[in-house]
Amino acid sequence: MKIFDRKIEIRSRYKLTKHNLPIIYTPGVAEAAKAVAKNKKKIFDYTWKNNSVAIVSDGSAVLGLGNLGPEAALPVMEGKAVLFKELANVDAVPIVLATQNTEKIVETVKNIAPAFGGINLEDISAPRCFEIEKRLIAELNIPVFHDDQHGTAIVVLAGLINALKVVKKNIRKAKVVVSGAGAAGIATTKLLLRYGAKNIIVFDSWGPICPRCAYNRNDAKAELAKVTNRDNFMGNLREALHGADVFVGVSAKRLLKAADISKMNRGSVVFAMSNPIPEITYKEAKFGGAAVAATGRSDFPNQINNALVFPGIFRGALDTRTRLITDKIKVRAAEAIAGLVKSPKSDRIVPEVLDRRVAKAVADVF
Amino acid sequence: MKIFDRKIEIRSRYKLTKHNLPIIYTPGVAEAAKAVAKNKKKIFDYTWKNNSVAIVSDGSAVLGLGNLGPEAALPVMEGKAVLFKELANVDAVPIVLATQNTEKIVETVKNIAPAFGGINLEDISAPRCFEIEKRLIAELNIPVFHDDQHGTAIVVLAGLINALKVVKKNIRKAKVVVSGAGAAGIATTKLLLRYGAKNIIVFDSWGPICPRCAYNRNDAKAELAKVTNRDNFMGNLREALHGADVFVGVSAKRLLKAADISKMNRGSVVFAMSNPIPEITYKEAKFGGAAVAATGRSDFPNQINNALVFPGIFRGALDTRTRLITDKIKVRAAEAIAGLVKSPKSDRIVPEVLDRRVAKAVADVF
Repeated sequence: MKIFDRKIEIRSRYKLTKHNLPIIYTPGVAEAAKAVAKNKKKIFDYTWKNNSVAIVSDGSAVLGLGNLGPEAALPVMEGKAVLFKELANVDAVPIVLATQNTEKIVETVKNIAPAFGGINLEDISAPRCFEIEKRLIAELNIPVFHDDQHGTAIVVLAGLINALKVVKKNIRKAKVVVSGAGAAGIATTKLLLRYGAKNIIVFDSWGPICPRCAYNRNDAKAELAKVTNRDNFMGNLREALHGADVFVGVSAKRLLKAADISKMNRGSVVFAMSNPIPEITYKEAKFGGAAVAATGRSDFPNQINNALVFPGIFRGALDTRTRLITDKIKVRAAEAIAGLVKSPKSDRIVPEVLDRRVAKAVADVF
Repeated sequence: MKIFDRKIEIRSRYKLTKHNLPIIYTPGVAEAAKAVAKNKKKIFDYTWKNNSVAIVSDGSAVLGLGNLGPEAALPVMEGKAVLFKELANVDAVPIVLATQNTEKIVETVKNIAPAFGGINLEDISAPRCFEIEKRLIAELNIPVFHDDQHGTAIVVLAGLINALKVVKKNIRKAKVVVSGAGAAGIATTKLLLRYGAKNIIVFDSWGPICPRCAYNRNDAKAELAKVTNRDNFMGNLREALHGADVFVGVSAKRLLKAADISKMNRGSVVFAMSNPIPEITYKEAKFGGAAVAATGRSDFPNQINNALVFPGIFRGALDTRTRLITDKIKVRAAEAIAGLVKSPKSDRIVPEVLDRRVAKAVADVF
């Protein structure tokens, strides 16, 4: 695979000429500066703040590859910036941070916020990502969205809505096993519960999160323990798959084999989302009997990828000046994505990532 | 004058297709991320760090308009970004800061530096700008250039080289009066001294900076007092112009009338650079007898504007991975700009801002 060089560039929206130079630069910019100084809201009229998003990462959880640092995160953020622009005409700027300290990240993002209409947090490891997002939502007056959490949660819910249609099951009765209790796993579990799921067991690398387990876990997991795994299951992941209806893998590891999938209920749904290496390949999942299988990759059917979500979320938030991306918006976004597939089938539960209708449908839920 | 809406956008350098999606986004970006994690220098090959500059301002000295704040600074920074791109193909991102605290600015810029190949400091008031620049040069491994200081200094020197040719004077023998001891005035004075000027008097809003004056001035001015105004002149600006050869205005105020210029020596050179309102208009300066007059504006001849400097400076620094913009580079850049005007005339001492040769000539001095 050929790796591209730089993927993005800044472009002037106007061809610079002798005629417009005094408007685009000095003395014209002085007029805009004075107008904004007089009324700060004019910044939305006279600058790109009405269309700009900072994609902020500290490189602590780059894809499923771990703490590779800010430099290594940059190509990923540039790739996201391409999708932002091409799918939703959002001007997204990669900002990779030379610090992984929660307090310093919060302060840095607040300090650079004036030029941006939104903040997309990206590839920041749990549990720091939860506090960083919470603090920034509270302290900034622009939308803040941690894509690894909510983008994943929304797209998984979208896929699951259609997958359950294919296998004719009800989310309220389905047994769901989630592997991974990082940013994606926790947010996805919460959104599935919000949508009606009753029976979810979440695994972290130590084992199942359960009400009576006394592991030294972080606050986010402790909270999850109160609302998942009601039966206090304490076996391993493979055992949990016995009689399960849905597997959601967001664990950054190759974990399962076809034989594990074969232990699930008939009409099983397997979302192996880890990137770039899924928990189980599409082919193995199908070989193990999955009625519906999906990964985050584009080289197999059913690409359950955040790219279906974040461009439209920010398009909608920017256009409506929405500051808070609520659970209600998240559920509606998932339904909107699912709704674009008229007759869901085993190998077609979500639209293609490049389907230009998607971002618009998501933006329209705002 | 019509004020434009947003002037810049992020663009993908590749049209996104089903074919290149796996390269531009996942799993392709994972390859780039791993390659950079293995060897950090690869960030220059696989991201826009080889071509990106952050234009950083805290809005404390927006043009000559004063402390208008970061929001008001943003249109100016977007205008600069247009010039960066159109004149030198540099991808410049406006970053306006929600803090004016020196320590926090330094920390914030350091924290966002990994994605950028250079830092252009802009419209940050003196004397904080001096410490901020000094600290960032010492603590970052990419070039840091405060354009209000050095961009102005370079372009003034370029204009003066040719203006002195027109009036057939030698900088070593010229009496130079500089009005303004902020970022631009101090840096310009230093560069003129470096180039051979012996007799410079610098005024701040209190009066002349002089060796024996006991004003409570900042360190930068105290340093200047040691190398300027050797005769300990203590009169006002108008009096200082008696018998002066060159006036350089970087003081953000309308200060002078034609009658003041008429007191200067024959063959006087008047650079009234304050923006958007010059210290004296081009027409008044000429009416007062200036042999060569110039302003920073594009609507009169001789536009002495930093736009002749910063695009080429960063083009050169990025292409050669130069970290330190030395005085030697600054002098050479000024000579290169001056050299593009083959036969300097009273109304033509510098190239046009849109002259596409300029950025290349400046970049070539690296």
